[in-house]
Amino acid sequence: MSNILYNSAYDLKKALEQSKEYIQLKKLYDDVQHDESAKNIFRNFRSTQLNLHEKQVTGKEITEEEIIHAEKCVQLVQQNGKIAALLKAEESMNMLLQRITSIILEPLDELYKKSE
Amino acid sequence: MSNILYNSAYDLKKALEQSKEYIQLKKLYDDVQHDESAKNIFRNFRSTQLNLHEKQVTGKEITEEEIIHAEKCVQLVQQNGKIAALLKAEESMNMLLQRITSIILEPLDELYKKSE
Ligand SMILES: [Ca+2]
Ligand SMILES: [Ca+2]
Repeated sequence: MSNILYNSAYDLKKALEQSKEYIQLKKLYDDVQHDESAKNIFRNFRSTQLNLHEKQVTGKEITEEEIIHAEKCVQLVQQNGKIAALLKAEESMNMLLQRITSIILEPLDELYKKSE
Repeated sequence: MSNILYNSAYDLKKALEQSKEYIQLKKLYDDVQHDESAKNIFRNFRSTQLNLHEKQVTGKEITEEEIIHAEKCVQLVQQNGKIAALLKAEESMNMLLQRITSIILEPLDELYKKSE
């Protein structure tokens, strides 16, 4: 990687780290991590999501017990204000990353669009 | 998005656009697009790849005819120097993008790694 590319990527990383979206996400994430109950609910929710996603992708059967468990995880998450705030901040961060990505990848999009 | 974030993303886009990897990719892509035979082989190869990928993801059956057709597309691609060069340049670009992405996303990786 050339120095100009590396430095540009590094500058963007610093800007992201100092963005209000990242600072907010970090704060809300720490709030959840420092609350034992919220931390466990969030961890269960994430691992359940991941498990179901993997089963879907690999075409494995999802049992009724797993669906009930997943629904319970979602319910617990919805009842927890700290986690709800964290999920919202994650969504904002994802939207921000999508906008950043679409700016960066514009030259590549242009290249491949021309031929269609 | 704040101005500093937007400007950082824009600077990275410009650096990517001016990188030797992008200039090389663009040149090789244009070479293929200006060669009617190479262009058709490349287009068939891509649409065949996309079709098989979609069938795999959605769990649809891939017929024997489709496998034979896909193999023929790969053969034609391998026999074409212009396309081979383009595919190699695409691989280099993908590696570059992965390195850039891992720099940018470091703060987010750090955030989520802490809790594991
Ligand atoms: Ca360097
Ligand atoms: Ca702005």
